[in-house]
Amino acid sequence: MNVRPLATALEQFAADRDWTQFHSPKNLVMALTGEVGELTEIFQWLTEAQSRDAGKDPRTAQAVKDELADVQLYLVRLASVLGVDLNEAVQQKLQKNAQKYPVDKARGSNKKYTDL
Amino acid sequence: MNVRPLATALEQFAADRDWTQFHSPKNLVMALTGEVGELTEIFQWLTEAQSRDAGKDPRTAQAVKDELADVQLYLVRLASVLGVDLNEAVQQKLQKNAQKYPVDKARGSNKKYTDL
Amino acid sequence: MNVRPLATALEQFAADRDWTQFHSPKNLVMALTGEVGELTEIFQWLTEAQSRDAGKDPRTAQAVKDELADVQLYLVRLASVLGVDLNEAVQQKLQKNAQKYPVDKARGSNKKYTDL
Amino acid sequence: MNVRPLATALEQFAADRDWTQFHSPKNLVMALTGEVGELTEIFQWLTEAQSRDAGKDPRTAQAVKDELADVQLYLVRLASVLGVDLNEAVQQKLQKNAQKYPVDKARGSNKKYTDL
Repeated sequence: MNVRPLATALEQFAADRDWTQFHSPKNLVMALTGEVGELTEIFQWLTEAQSRDAGKDPRTAQAVKDELADVQLYLVRLASVLGVDLNEAVQQKLQKNAQKYPVDKARGSNKKYTDL
Repeated sequence: MNVRPLATALEQFAADRDWTQFHSPKNLVMALTGEVGELTEIFQWLTEAQSRDAGKDPRTAQAVKDELADVQLYLVRLASVLGVDLNEAVQQKLQKNAQKYPVDKARGSNKKYTDL
Repeated sequence: MNVRPLATALEQFAADRDWTQFHSPKNLVMALTGEVGELTEIFQWLTEAQSRDAGKDPRTAQAVKDELADVQLYLVRLASVLGVDLNEAVQQKLQKNAQKYPVDKARGSNKKYTDL
Repeated sequence: MNVRPLATALEQFAADRDWTQFHSPKNLVMALTGEVGELTEIFQWLTEAQSRDAGKDPRTAQAVKDELADVQLYLVRLASVLGVDLNEAVQQKLQKNAQKYPVDKARGSNKKYTDL
């Protein structure tokens, strides 16, 4: 997953509008929270079964797409201003998860083990 | 940004542990919220100035990296089970944002215009 | 709902520890987010049916109680530092909601109408 | 803090509209997340100093009041459907916090100690 071109585009987008002054990590974490809140509002009254169709349902599909994109944009922007290599962080976390949740112990459990 | 290999790895990770049953979009949105909450806890008592160094500060750098990765993992997994092409969603949103916040009008404003 | 004694107790608690310096509304909103994130983590892998028993289930009851309390404490503290009368705000909102969602139109809908 | 009259009013409000079917704890936790997200959006681009005036600033005061109320309403409703006595939970948590953060050790620290 190469997020560098996107990070560069977002940096330029902010610089063009003189918004880099507002893009502290603290503020961006709050912006990320706001977007996850909007995503949550789409799903809050849906049953789990209904939620499985939300990506195709004409009433919700575009909203879902927009909010997923917003979360991704702020996440890449946040990692960028923090100087964190998001791809490396992800690869590292995948390895940690594989060790933390060995297949034989984690199978089918919905306890603490069900972290991704 | 090509998230397909990561989406496939997460699908396999879940299938190996019989966790796909828990991975409804509704549940995954909640898991995403939980991770953003953990990320927020790192930053909640920091000043904006302190937050700018959180990616390098030895006390917080690893935690920041881990939480950013967790948000990214759940976001890719969520888009995947929803059947949403995250990269296409992002490209579409970038175009919308460019139209919504024209450079000359948005410059330096921290009002509504400061969405990414 | 009289939150003044609680607001006073929290003010004293913070003053005793020299924490009022950290209790800006911005920081407290983030702390509130963190607590809601912890509350969410309790419920994320539960079905709706399972969630209905979470207040009695010995595995989750105490955690639920603690997290609900944390959200309440930060909410009262936040309103307090903002100078907002939480009780008045609630009464005002109840009236708005009654007007916004007239019984005959809102009945049984899970659309936008299902805001509380 | 006596939340019973409010809990009863919200129960009636939901019953009148046939919304109790949607008010599982899982759904209400998500609704709470959505409201905290809206509250966060008010504060995300403000400095800490600006955030201190947000309860009086004519541009933000009403929005702040409305969102604080929304969080309170969903929190009371959530505790109510879970069968949790919110006031007792709060009293219990206050005692725990007093033990967890003794004045002499916690003074002025913004580490883990700064939980409310």
